[in-house]
Amino acid sequence: MRCEVVAIGTELLLGQIIDTNSSWIGEQLAMAGIDSHFQTKVGDNLQRIIGSIELALSRSDAVICCGGLGPTQDDITREAIASVMGVGMERHDDIAARIRHIFESRGRVMADNNLRQADVPIGASTIPDQPGTAPGLICPIGDKVLYAVPGVPYEMHAMMNGTILPDLKRRAGLSSVIASRTLRTWGHSESRLAELLAPHIDALEASGNPTIAFLASGIEGIKVRITAKAADEAGVAALIAEEEARVREVLGHYVFGIDDQTMESVVLDHLRKRGETLAIAEVTSGGIASQRLSALDGDGVVFRGGLVASAGSVRERVLGVPAAKVGTREAAAALASAVRAHFGTDIGLATTGEHDLGRIAGTNAGTTYLGIAIGDEVKVEEVRLPGDRKRVREFSVISLLNSLRLRLELDSWAPQRDF
Amino acid sequence: MRCEVVAIGTELLLGQIIDTNSSWIGEQLAMAGIDSHFQTKVGDNLQRIIGSIELALSRSDAVICCGGLGPTQDDITREAIASVMGVGMERHDDIAARIRHIFESRGRVMADNNLRQADVPIGASTIPDQPGTAPGLICPIGDKVLYAVPGVPYEMHAMMNGTILPDLKRRAGLSSVIASRTLRTWGHSESRLAELLAPHIDALEASGNPTIAFLASGIEGIKVRITAKAADEAGVAALIAEEEARVREVLGHYVFGIDDQTMESVVLDHLRKRGETLAIAEVTSGGIASQRLSALDGDGVVFRGGLVASAGSVRERVLGVPAAKVGTREAAAALASAVRAHFGTDIGLATTGEHDLGRIAGTNAGTTYLGIAIGDEVKVEEVRLPGDRKRVREFSVISLLNSLRLRLELDSWAPQRDF
Repeated sequence: MRCEVVAIGTELLLGQIIDTNSSWIGEQLAMAGIDSHFQTKVGDNLQRIIGSIELALSRSDAVICCGGLGPTQDDITREAIASVMGVGMERHDDIAARIRHIFESRGRVMADNNLRQADVPIGASTIPDQPGTAPGLICPIGDKVLYAVPGVPYEMHAMMNGTILPDLKRRAGLSSVIASRTLRTWGHSESRLAELLAPHIDALEASGNPTIAFLASGIEGIKVRITAKAADEAGVAALIAEEEARVREVLGHYVFGIDDQTMESVVLDHLRKRGETLAIAEVTSGGIASQRLSALDGDGVVFRGGLVASAGSVRERVLGVPAAKVGTREAAAALASAVRAHFGTDIGLATTGEHDLGRIAGTNAGTTYLGIAIGDEVKVEEVRLPGDRKRVREFSVISLLNSLRLRLELDSWAPQRDF
Repeated sequence: MRCEVVAIGTELLLGQIIDTNSSWIGEQLAMAGIDSHFQTKVGDNLQRIIGSIELALSRSDAVICCGGLGPTQDDITREAIASVMGVGMERHDDIAARIRHIFESRGRVMADNNLRQADVPIGASTIPDQPGTAPGLICPIGDKVLYAVPGVPYEMHAMMNGTILPDLKRRAGLSSVIASRTLRTWGHSESRLAELLAPHIDALEASGNPTIAFLASGIEGIKVRITAKAADEAGVAALIAEEEARVREVLGHYVFGIDDQTMESVVLDHLRKRGETLAIAEVTSGGIASQRLSALDGDGVVFRGGLVASAGSVRERVLGVPAAKVGTREAAAALASAVRAHFGTDIGLATTGEHDLGRIAGTNAGTTYLGIAIGDEVKVEEVRLPGDRKRVREFSVISLLNSLRLRLELDSWAPQRDF
């Protein structure tokens, strides 16, 4: 069973709206075990919409059209579908009454063009779920099917979940369950991960179940997604657990979390369990670490606070670290210790680097020093981070938190590896 | 001149990544006066990529392929293009050397498959802008042209701006100049802005030049974009200047900046001119203000530093503000004054609110207090911000900076208006 998506709207082509609908639909189709090979965006032009639908129907068993079901003259998806079906339109009185009622119940006057939404291509049926004024459509075309849903996300979601996905699975005769788990990694490049897992992935290819995919996500690290299919929930859970164990055996502590976990959520969880508290002095990262940690721990139970020490005079005045020392290994150690004392926490962290000498040395690149003070033990890790200033700032935070994570998990200092 | 976009990557179809690249490219094409009728997403499948490129070339004069230029076996855009061109590939030694150098300069070992990025279809040339390891490609195909760019946004942006857009405009022989200016506003809702500018927009509709569009951008405020067309740069500049003056007359100080200016860049510019310095105590905003300000002033010339005071004990210990007072008007005033003294700056700012009592009062909503201390003058503004915790955190920063901006620009305290 193949299904593709045609997203309709000139505003999508102009970049005024980002087409998150197709992405969401694509994810649902994948999770339902339905193949999807193409997604198309087309503007509000009748001939081009018709052409896109016909092309999609020629190469897939089902097509989902998203958008263009509104009341204005620009909304011509209904007309395009009628043309593809080779039929006229008929007004459904029950839909017209429903639309009238929605306006009346909001105390609003209904403009007549709203009744266009009650026009349905002859032979099409409407989708029962209808959270807004626009009805969705189910249109049989030969032995294939075309669905039309509004572009308003919550209306589209309701129709997809309530009607279209179950209908597609029924048509496909799918009885199997698909699930996935994402292992989140930090420290290896995508090509290095691919190399490490290559023998394993080759072995999987014979069965095609489970599958493994890589997803480079910038400062969120590189995700390794395991997807499996089985007859029931228990079967798919077993397949994924088995596969996860094998991947973890290869990647070890490069895996920092799963699914929705982030580097900061993992670090905070570790510290919460240990009953320890954290503070940070940010020079390189300028508040990014504080912002990420406080988002998950706003009450300051673990993350007591951060000091963004942009000016040398502040580092000297508040933390007693000589301004001239910024951007050195010694400064990272001194800042981590000083911020720990300043906030009275168990652990103190710090980011600083050669790039913080920007105005002095005229450089924005160079080595970054990540300081970690745990009790009286102070460790400084030296890393070279890729990219522009913005990326160096962000990478410094994740690298630092990863160093702390490794220290907490392994109870010894493990170096960062390649990025 | 018609140009369409083919975005390549199975992860796009699976919804693991949202295709913001095509949207961005679509916007740039529109602004350059180049028509774009279709955008296609296709997975990492050679035949389907070839088919999508051929279809796009059949209906447009130029095609931009985005993604699939990486080093792994999944990255097959190069091979697909060579097939469409009917040529083989050759390895460019200069690119190979460059890739080797990038790895070496980061002290990393290069996996051999990275050299795949140095393979170029015969007859194609490479795009000079190359911020990452993947070179972009310019491929002549008959009298048409195909560009290939990496899916990494900042690499793609550099190639689009540096090479592809100028090349497309040259090929299109575009003689009229299109330009736009964005007026950035804060304080009015989109519907209120539309209401205020309605008579003016109605008057513009007759000529259709210039045009005005609204773009709601969350914590970046609401953008009012003026777009104009004329025979030359001088003509278009005059049209835009005239229109900008008219819009500003209606919106006054609700306009905080233009184009790439942000609320923080405007505030920093004001303070730089005045030779004044700034510090902030962040409770509600947890580091977001520090991060935004330090991104533009990392050396701390104006923004001396920030204190993220998540824990009550930190506020008491470091700033001497009683923990019990958090989330009140008095706390906002005390924090702004104390952080000003702590960092030794001209101006002290603070964010706190009822939601900071989350654990105590069981609420995440409520009034936010924004403190501003200028010398011995202390002002607290009370705002009710919409949305969940994440949005309240972000809105508190922009509201606070906007209050400071109005104070600096008007030399008196102007209240925030509707949100």
